[in-house]
Amino acid sequence: MTQDEVNRLSGLARRRVAIERITPQIDCGRFPVKRVVGDLVDVEADLVSDGHDLLGAVLKHSDSTGALAEHPMELINNDRWRAAFQVREMGLHLFAIEAWVDHFATWRQGLAKKVEADLDDREALIELKIGARFVRRAAERADEARRGLLEYLAGILDEPSDLKAALQTALSDATGAMMQDYADRRFSTTSPVLEIRVDPERARASAWYEMFPRSASPVPGKHGTLRDCVDRLPYVAGMGFDVLYLPPIHPIGIANRKGKNNNPVAEADDVGSPWAIGSALGGHKDIDLQLGTLDDFKYLLAKCKEFGMDLAIDLAFQCSADHPYLRSHPEWFLARPDGTIQYAENPPKKYQDIYPFYFETEEWTDLWDELKDIVLYWIAQGVRIFRVDNPHTKPFAFWEWLIGEVKRDYPEVLFLAEAFTRPKIMYRLAKLGFTHSYTYFAWRNSKSELTEYLKELTTTPVREFFRPHFWPNTPDILTNELQTGGRSAFMSRLVLAATLSANYGIYGPAFELMENRALIPGKEEYLNAEKYEIRQWDIDRPDSLRDFVTRVNQCRREHPALERDDTLRFHPTDSDQLIAYSKSTPDLADTILVVVNLDFFNTRSGWTDLSLANLGLTSWQVYRVRDLLTGNEYQWQGARNYIELNPAKIPAHIFHIRR
Amino acid sequence: MTQDEVNRLSGLARRRVAIERITPQIDCGRFPVKRVVGDLVDVEADLVSDGHDLLGAVLKHSDSTGALAEHPMELINNDRWRAAFQVREMGLHLFAIEAWVDHFATWRQGLAKKVEADLDDREALIELKIGARFVRRAAERADEARRGLLEYLAGILDEPSDLKAALQTALSDATGAMMQDYADRRFSTTSPVLEIRVDPERARASAWYEMFPRSASPVPGKHGTLRDCVDRLPYVAGMGFDVLYLPPIHPIGIANRKGKNNNPVAEADDVGSPWAIGSALGGHKDIDLQLGTLDDFKYLLAKCKEFGMDLAIDLAFQCSADHPYLRSHPEWFLARPDGTIQYAENPPKKYQDIYPFYFETEEWTDLWDELKDIVLYWIAQGVRIFRVDNPHTKPFAFWEWLIGEVKRDYPEVLFLAEAFTRPKIMYRLAKLGFTHSYTYFAWRNSKSELTEYLKELTTTPVREFFRPHFWPNTPDILTNELQTGGRSAFMSRLVLAATLSANYGIYGPAFELMENRALIPGKEEYLNAEKYEIRQWDIDRPDSLRDFVTRVNQCRREHPALERDDTLRFHPTDSDQLIAYSKSTPDLADTILVVVNLDFFNTRSGWTDLSLANLGLTSWQVYRVRDLLTGNEYQWQGARNYIELNPAKIPAHIFHIRR
Repeated sequence: MTQDEVNRLSGLARRRVAIERITPQIDCGRFPVKRVVGDLVDVEADLVSDGHDLLGAVLKHSDSTGALAEHPMELINNDRWRAAFQVREMGLHLFAIEAWVDHFATWRQGLAKKVEADLDDREALIELKIGARFVRRAAERADEARRGLLEYLAGILDEPSDLKAALQTALSDATGAMMQDYADRRFSTTSPVLEIRVDPERARASAWYEMFPRSASPVPGKHGTLRDCVDRLPYVAGMGFDVLYLPPIHPIGIANRKGKNNNPVAEADDVGSPWAIGSALGGHKDIDLQLGTLDDFKYLLAKCKEFGMDLAIDLAFQCSADHPYLRSHPEWFLARPDGTIQYAENPPKKYQDIYPFYFETEEWTDLWDELKDIVLYWIAQGVRIFRVDNPHTKPFAFWEWLIGEVKRDYPEVLFLAEAFTRPKIMYRLAKLGFTHSYTYFAWRNSKSELTEYLKELTTTPVREFFRPHFWPNTPDILTNELQTGGRSAFMSRLVLAATLSANYGIYGPAFELMENRALIPGKEEYLNAEKYEIRQWDIDRPDSLRDFVTRVNQCRREHPALERDDTLRFHPTDSDQLIAYSKSTPDLADTILVVVNLDFFNTRSGWTDLSLANLGLTSWQVYRVRDLLTGNEYQWQGARNYIELNPAKIPAHIFHIRR
Repeated sequence: MTQDEVNRLSGLARRRVAIERITPQIDCGRFPVKRVVGDLVDVEADLVSDGHDLLGAVLKHSDSTGALAEHPMELINNDRWRAAFQVREMGLHLFAIEAWVDHFATWRQGLAKKVEADLDDREALIELKIGARFVRRAAERADEARRGLLEYLAGILDEPSDLKAALQTALSDATGAMMQDYADRRFSTTSPVLEIRVDPERARASAWYEMFPRSASPVPGKHGTLRDCVDRLPYVAGMGFDVLYLPPIHPIGIANRKGKNNNPVAEADDVGSPWAIGSALGGHKDIDLQLGTLDDFKYLLAKCKEFGMDLAIDLAFQCSADHPYLRSHPEWFLARPDGTIQYAENPPKKYQDIYPFYFETEEWTDLWDELKDIVLYWIAQGVRIFRVDNPHTKPFAFWEWLIGEVKRDYPEVLFLAEAFTRPKIMYRLAKLGFTHSYTYFAWRNSKSELTEYLKELTTTPVREFFRPHFWPNTPDILTNELQTGGRSAFMSRLVLAATLSANYGIYGPAFELMENRALIPGKEEYLNAEKYEIRQWDIDRPDSLRDFVTRVNQCRREHPALERDDTLRFHPTDSDQLIAYSKSTPDLADTILVVVNLDFFNTRSGWTDLSLANLGLTSWQVYRVRDLLTGNEYQWQGARNYIELNPAKIPAHIFHIRR
């Protein structure tokens, strides 16, 4: 062996333990897994070694402050080991596994077997001398407080005055524990270091309410303001929402402005799309004068806090033709040979009023810096949640950098990815740092579609990085079901969104007022969409779903089971139109069972076939279920119970299981 | 952005494609996947990018000679891409994926759509100018032969004399193909480099015959020799085996020699276990004088070749107490406090006649070098196959180094891991380089056990690194089934081993002579095991299974379907005792269906439910099946066909499907 080879191998040659299949991890450790403050992180790995020796292993955890802790790992079975730690601080945590062959433990186990099989005295003395070697070496590693004790112990084993007593000492649990503290790790193996992104608790569960500030005026026809939003807060908070999300609040472009109903030609009084950002009056760091001032914005932020709500704003990295960037930084846009700039497209949608940034520009560093500066500007004003418009049309590397930069200093900041695109792109965005992600929920309607999709989100590796956000409607999405399903469809889809996903939101007041008129029936654009015009909403309309929304949000607030996705379990029913699922806290102290009628028009009835173990119940156990939507209580027994849901009344049960 | 940050990011910022989930790969590329010469390597990956641009991608393959080739990748669906290459040389091959956003292809696709939607002339001229930009840049990248053509083409697009013709030129397939050759890869992403270990074809399929040379003498009571083995070759080769494997042929220790039937005390005339290697007469590079000389060994090797067979020898890295290493290198063994050395154990087995090497020795470099030298010594004599005894009791790092070193210079060398231990350890050994692995086949008897185990081996990622070797018996393993199942058990287990696994072996003549007497009935040790004494075998016994073994091996030789494991499929039958499975060549040209009666005592009958697509058949198709064991031919139709197998006759069908 050459000296080079010796050098290369010497760090490996005697490290006999291999560490494989560490969970959780994403793409071989390329991305951090996601957790929230307070979570217990369960780590498992396969630890294998040659021979038949016993192993020792610790899970090492470094929290976001750099504090290091070690947790002994335990063998589960089939060479799989486990340990856990709690994450208490936001930010980036690190963990790794260290494992070694434990010669002392192996020797001690062998000695126990030999003693059982009647060891002769001569052999016993040799065995004890072997043990003494291990203990003496441990003494060398021990801190001063223990060193003397270990040396004394080594002496007993080396030259026993009473053989039986010495054997007992060697085999005692106390000796075992002490030796474990000073295990010989010279030839230990350490795994690669893996990362955990720990988000604030709000990341686990939230109920969002999206509204257009310019439609918030109580005076018909008048342009609403941020102050009008303040007046709307009791209404929104009263329904139990905890995040108020506003579409872009910046100056809106004049050139190529869209008219009502996405008309490529605007009338003089048309207000344009808030996503066509930038005019002579300013860009991404400015507020549309018609909405108010920065002071108004800060006042709204402060009032949201008073109501226990967070304010989310929109990050739409794109420009109208009038945006100041077009003149100050033409190199950030790709000009065509005739000097014009190609407008944005998100096929089949065309955004003639919007120019995308050219991320392949030679001046990408300036562009990235400026976009980061926009985020930092709004953070400086107090914003902590950003809904990011079309992140899938900007490079992955940019988002990974931007979110990493921001969260390094502000780990409490949340980013919601509004990407409705192919699944692997949505997952990539989630992996690289987006806290939350919009989903395909709006287009998952049947029992099998919902079940399959939720299983993918909550029981596959996707759960480690993708936090779903369920929206039954958005200003862009008025589904066919809502167009045609009537009141029941809105109620049913609300319950599904709010109970299947711990993070959900509605676009209101369109939602609670059951706005269902489409520009072209069967297509998803609203008629008279708020994206292009001011709407007047009568939020006090007697048929409003306001009270129902309030009740659903109350269920979520009062039941921590609904504030998590990891315990979601589906339960069979004998009807294709009745979907049943449960959620619970890990200790099963709080357990919720939801049953929804997916048929918006007909009463459906059937029998459940509950997976009782997931509900903390045993077969034949009698228990009570209380419907949190009606207050009715039923006595049930076992797995099979009768359900009947009339969509003309309430198309769902949200049962609290009372054991 | 600081200059450091710019430097760090500049290699990433504009590389917009992410490459994920490349297959095949093992443990994030930590180990090479395994293939044999001639295999087509199918590579897939998820390629995702922001936006809606088209991508380009190539699979790059560097063979073991360093020759580099590129293969264009094609989109399968859902962002999954594919390409393949053939591996033609043994050794370590490398591959990687390079992918980029293809701006020209994106532009061309957009132009086609616009032309279809009736582009106006002004817009067409602008579009063509954009295309001209791409073509001009491609010209700069092109080799001289093409540069002129591309410049000419750019001119046509830039200043078209005939607009329609210019559009047609831009959209022509020829333009597309030429531009693909000179795609703009400035901002391409390249995946990590992954490895493929390409073994000789023999690694794909082989039939081994294990025998003790010292039992090969035709003279009763006389110690057999390597020359006697030469005389036995027509018999072994005649049965259709292609590897002759001999237990260790080295001098056997005297001290602590085992007597007959594993007696810890030997009689004067006891021959000892061949695995207790080393005496005053030599060690691992020497041949037991009673077996013959090195010349005899080389003669045997040469004669094996004549019979179309390879010779496999045993690598048992351990020593008897008399091994010369004990004196020349006492530091390679772990002494106990009384100076003695602990003998080897493979619980519950005890090997009092064997000392293990101490791999944690400070002198590990010398030890490793010497063990490698043993392998190289036998390679120099002409050996190319090693059956490795208990590799799981030596460190993983040692094997990875040893096999890597040997295969760098001798890629044709095969190592078979004789590890019967926990599954993850067996898999680790396979990953780190063993060409073949013994398996749990001997203990998988029921239909569900066999099905489950074979599915794990052939349809999970295990198939990329673990090449199973099925043995119905070994000198250590006489299963309860063989002890009690009679002739039918031997036949049934032979067919299963030889047709479920492309690599299999038997320990003979014990197997074909149906030796079934156990030392302790129900335990796996043979009575009068050859490990401890010379046995006389009457290979001409009229009840020998020799002819049946010959027929089974003939099926394998004549049917390439049986020489591979990757196409194994199980087919339901309505009997728990009838197991049915098929194998085929990838083109389905050769298709074999095997049905085995797992009940050794009773005739079993039932109906198959064949998965016809896997047999190249359509429903209701009439086809003929020919039983290669009996020559009988049947006309079948569709999936359901009647099977009846009488274990008193032949407990299996090996059908060739004739379409």
